[in-house]
Amino acid sequence: LPMFDFADHPHRRYNPLQDSWVLVSPHRAKRPWQGQQEAPDNAPRPAHDPHCYLCAGNTRVGGETNPPYTGTYVFTNDFPALLPDTPPHHGDDPLLASDSVRGTGRVICFSPDHGKTLPELPEAAIRGVIDTWIAQYDELGARWRWVQIFENKGAAMGCSNPHPHGQIWASDFLPNYPAQADVCQRRYLERHGRNLLLDYAERERQQRERIVVDGEHWLAVVPWWAVWPFETLLMPRAHLPRLTQASAAQRADLARVLKELTTRYDNLFQTSFPYSMGWHGAPFDDAPTDHWQCHAHFYPPLLRSASVKKFMVGYEMLAEAQRDLTPEQAAERLRAVSTVHYRQNAP
Amino acid sequence: LPMFDFADHPHRRYNPLQDSWVLVSPHRAKRPWQGQQEAPDNAPRPAHDPHCYLCAGNTRVGGETNPPYTGTYVFTNDFPALLPDTPPHHGDDPLLASDSVRGTGRVICFSPDHGKTLPELPEAAIRGVIDTWIAQYDELGARWRWVQIFENKGAAMGCSNPHPHGQIWASDFLPNYPAQADVCQRRYLERHGRNLLLDYAERERQQRERIVVDGEHWLAVVPWWAVWPFETLLMPRAHLPRLTQASAAQRADLARVLKELTTRYDNLFQTSFPYSMGWHGAPFDDAPTDHWQCHAHFYPPLLRSASVKKFMVGYEMLAEAQRDLTPEQAAERLRAVSTVHYRQNAP
Ligand SMILES: O=P(O)(O)O[C@H]1O[C@H](CO)[C@@H](O)[C@H](O)[C@H]1O
Ligand SMILES: O=P(O)(O)O[C@H]1O[C@H](CO)[C@@H](O)[C@H](O)[C@H]1O
Repeated sequence: LPMFDFADHPHRRYNPLQDSWVLVSPHRAKRPWQGQQEAPDNAPRPAHDPHCYLCAGNTRVGGETNPPYTGTYVFTNDFPALLPDTPPHHGDDPLLASDSVRGTGRVICFSPDHGKTLPELPEAAIRGVIDTWIAQYDELGARWRWVQIFENKGAAMGCSNPHPHGQIWASDFLPNYPAQADVCQRRYLERHGRNLLLDYAERERQQRERIVVDGEHWLAVVPWWAVWPFETLLMPRAHLPRLTQASAAQRADLARVLKELTTRYDNLFQTSFPYSMGWHGAPFDDAPTDHWQCHAHFYPPLLRSASVKKFMVGYEMLAEAQRDLTPEQAAERLRAVSTVHYRQNAP
Repeated sequence: LPMFDFADHPHRRYNPLQDSWVLVSPHRAKRPWQGQQEAPDNAPRPAHDPHCYLCAGNTRVGGETNPPYTGTYVFTNDFPALLPDTPPHHGDDPLLASDSVRGTGRVICFSPDHGKTLPELPEAAIRGVIDTWIAQYDELGARWRWVQIFENKGAAMGCSNPHPHGQIWASDFLPNYPAQADVCQRRYLERHGRNLLLDYAERERQQRERIVVDGEHWLAVVPWWAVWPFETLLMPRAHLPRLTQASAAQRADLARVLKELTTRYDNLFQTSFPYSMGWHGAPFDDAPTDHWQCHAHFYPPLLRSASVKKFMVGYEMLAEAQRDLTPEQAAERLRAVSTVHYRQNAP
């Protein structure tokens, strides 16, 4: 038998944040693709669209009119999945268990400019988005145990409006994935006496092969356990259980790193790169937070080009997530592209 | 406060097979949809396509020629994600853990008829598919610990060929989801002294509101904890840890129930209903199997029509699965459609 080689041989990798595995099949990247193609999102867009319900001055479905905002703009979702006043209910039948839940949903417009996405905004505007995230955490965290900040970008990710925006769903319960991250980080601290993601960031800075952006305060890597082809994990280099605790220097560097990371994404296939991204950090309850390190996940679906995505179906839904190219290969490709956005000098 | 109502108020339901939760937001079904639309798959197809690599007599990418098969036809995947001869490797660094894996991949053509899907095949042909699944379990289970039988149907599910077919990925490890189902069923047996899914099937037959097909030996329900809008769980009414143990009567009834379930799916939106489906059963090792009950999951993405699917993105990827219509509403709609396939009398 030849020596085992990560870049050649099927293997599984362990995700210590979710206590789960991913199957890696590097030899499989060669198979031809005859399936569904995505329509790449490359059309230039006007700075203001009279039919967009997120543009400044326009009227939304619910009848409200957006103010003439100039930076970010936050409002309560017209169709929130969570409501603050649900009546109490608890059903503890082990086969039909249920709980009523309370919470709220908000929309964050990143900019009044309908035609630009995160990487195309100036660093100062991205800093404005970060400050808005933090202000929302402060406000919503005072009332709700979990505040999920996220962005769905692109039609391939179910996003129905190209205007640059994200969402917040806050709830009185800890959802599945953050609950699992809480357990895993606590267990690591108990076993090793150290913070899981701080140890991990250090390891990645030694090995370097999965690093995409190595900022002064923030590090973006294609994690060892990445599921999506170009998935990244963005984490601080110092201990920071919640984003709300970030210093001015950490916020400024985050703006720079976010701009570079999303620019690299767009440049990879010369398209506005679709993804879901979102933040995890210590829940807003009274539990100790030593084990927590805040971080953002980027889950982009594209695999080979602007129009061919990875389908997480069949085996992935029923057995285990699976990937073809290795995280090291993905990171190398993201490092190889320019940090100047491909549309910057376009007409 | 009004009384809590499952059909009106946001709540979470517990999945006892995976030890996870799903957020249900029934009030949200009213929101308008402005996002991406799928292209419905309604074009009639010829019984033989000279360009299809699965049709009888045609040559595949790898150079092999398919025999003139008349029932089902099984061959080794030309691009398998798992290979039988991977060299051994074990990495136990808690942050960079990995294992090399071994296994194989196969393709099962359900019928030589390129133009028909499962619900359009005669019951005898579906019975042939079931017998093939069982023969494959017997053969592959003798060598591999886990044998994942599944079908990706439709372009929306990443299926690159409309010829009716499924896949098998067999491995020397137990993947994430079956490993979790193993733990959960074992714990239920330890706590309650009974089989989880047998208890559950009985409960559903008492309540009836989530039943879609109530066969003599098999039951299909939209489970209490369904994540996908019209997800179903298909399970035996008697204890049956592995599908390979099914009697002739159970196999015959399974053919009938599969035909009815997939016909109801197609009739719901008068389209060839896309889904991923697959089987779980006791792993092929020496552990006791009392806690196991074999079952199939159907995960179909469509939400409102042949062209509007549910996107599992953003909140769902980062926090927790979320659904709008309740499982009870979904089951009612699947019960309301005809059991005669909408294309049966089409020209
Ligand atoms: O094997 P296929 O049909 O080429 O590929 C399809 O099914 C596989 C198994 O579910 C997935 O890993 C792929 O993402 C999907 O495109
Ligand atoms: O809230 P939106 O943008 O209408 O909807 C989108 O994001 C939500 C949150 O991730 C998802 O539940 C929906 O399936 C998706 O279409």
